[in-house]
Amino acid sequence: MQTHWDTVAIVGVGLMGGSIGLALRGRGLAREVVGIGRRAASLRVARRMGAVTRTSLDVARGVADAELVVVCTPVDRIVADIERVAASCRPDALVTDVGSTKGSIVRGVAGLKLPIRYVGSHPLAGSERNGPAAATADLLVGRVVVVTPTRETPTRDRRELGRFWRALGARVVEMGAEEHDACVAAISHLPHVAAAALAGSTPAGAMPLAAQGWRDTTRVAAGDAHLWREILLDNRRNVLPRLDVYLQRLQAFQRALAEADATALERLLREGKRRRDAVGS
Amino acid sequence: MQTHWDTVAIVGVGLMGGSIGLALRGRGLAREVVGIGRRAASLRVARRMGAVTRTSLDVARGVADAELVVVCTPVDRIVADIERVAASCRPDALVTDVGSTKGSIVRGVAGLKLPIRYVGSHPLAGSERNGPAAATADLLVGRVVVVTPTRETPTRDRRELGRFWRALGARVVEMGAEEHDACVAAISHLPHVAAAALAGSTPAGAMPLAAQGWRDTTRVAAGDAHLWREILLDNRRNVLPRLDVYLQRLQAFQRALAEADATALERLLREGKRRRDAVGS
Repeated sequence: MQTHWDTVAIVGVGLMGGSIGLALRGRGLAREVVGIGRRAASLRVARRMGAVTRTSLDVARGVADAELVVVCTPVDRIVADIERVAASCRPDALVTDVGSTKGSIVRGVAGLKLPIRYVGSHPLAGSERNGPAAATADLLVGRVVVVTPTRETPTRDRRELGRFWRALGARVVEMGAEEHDACVAAISHLPHVAAAALAGSTPAGAMPLAAQGWRDTTRVAAGDAHLWREILLDNRRNVLPRLDVYLQRLQAFQRALAEADATALERLLREGKRRRDAVGS
Repeated sequence: MQTHWDTVAIVGVGLMGGSIGLALRGRGLAREVVGIGRRAASLRVARRMGAVTRTSLDVARGVADAELVVVCTPVDRIVADIERVAASCRPDALVTDVGSTKGSIVRGVAGLKLPIRYVGSHPLAGSERNGPAAATADLLVGRVVVVTPTRETPTRDRRELGRFWRALGARVVEMGAEEHDACVAAISHLPHVAAAALAGSTPAGAMPLAAQGWRDTTRVAAGDAHLWREILLDNRRNVLPRLDVYLQRLQAFQRALAEADATALERLLREGKRRRDAVGS
């Protein structure tokens, strides 16, 4: 059972890429971690933090020796980056990505018919912070990583990828890319829209009274606007129906309030509480 | 400057009442803290925790000696409880409440023309947990407490109440009850509706992927449904227009997603991020 890698290449050393590097190094799981990026400054930060042992501005050179390549760039660049990786990596290298949407990426990579071993991943761990300086060695500890094999994925590849994420402390859940996208629309993408709309519609005059409730409810809205734009556009086919369900429920609240219908209002509040209570704090 | 009280009475010893008692006792600010409630079991918990030194199931007996009475019952019971307090408390006792809405309470108390010194309060500190067992001595430390004097409130009363809350570690903000209600509709009541609707509309099948973002965004939905029903009904005149603004913004997201309008989508996300970034994590 492989839980040690000689060389792992990470394309895009931001919060997630940096955290994976720190965990690999901290746990002694890889001899070399190559950080590949477009900005020398970010790569220097990652190296200084100990997230990577080598850096490269050139994908071809960076991935040449790697047994495992993890693409951590924004969702709208992932397919193109995987294509670049495929042009230079070892034929036996296992390639994955950490994109927050999976359908279009997995389909996009399959459509290229690349001569590589590729399986998609999505670590359900993040932060409203960005960049390598926000990386931590325990970002994935106890978190779920969804791995999205296709019917064509060899058992060996999905097993190897599962071992990789588990070695970093994560729990691995396997599901199809389409099922994944439907789930994250409800559990991550809609909450982002809800939080961003809430923060954006709060009048400035009320801000001095912002307390823990407002902070919690809007926290994810601090996420990078460009990254989230791409995630939401990529998964809009799934996000739109969830947004519709959400609007309907808000309109039910609106009716209950307008009619001072205490029974309906309490039922709506109880339904929310029941779902929330099923999860820890 | 009075920052020590001989006897403080707390009517309703739940999360807030219990936390006030713990802080008073822990900071040596009161010799006696009398806990008054309707359930002997809750009063026993409060006494065992050291939140109160004496307990009473009878308001009249409980408040008789108090220089300061803090009413911490649910919003729909506060005016009636203040009326009961007024019937038995010392004529020089200062009475306040911690209700999350202030307009109807302050108007209700004024309408009764009680022979007491009353000024409304609202500590912007809470928790999705309830009951005295969830109380902590530092619940108010660093938190904002809004104090809502009227034009008739003597300077001495508002100053004394301000000193009380500051002695517990809080920051005091004074504003009129109506202005308070408009602000909390935006900053607390609408976020509660948004979170409850989000939690309630999340499909069960997606729950295994619930991560930090979903937990943060829905956290307040775990709050007591009955308490929140009363808060929302009491302040529906202010909540409804805020809900309308929120729905309009969500519909703007909906349009941007439906039309794959990247520019509009990013603008909406940036507006949310800007407002959220203005506040700490």
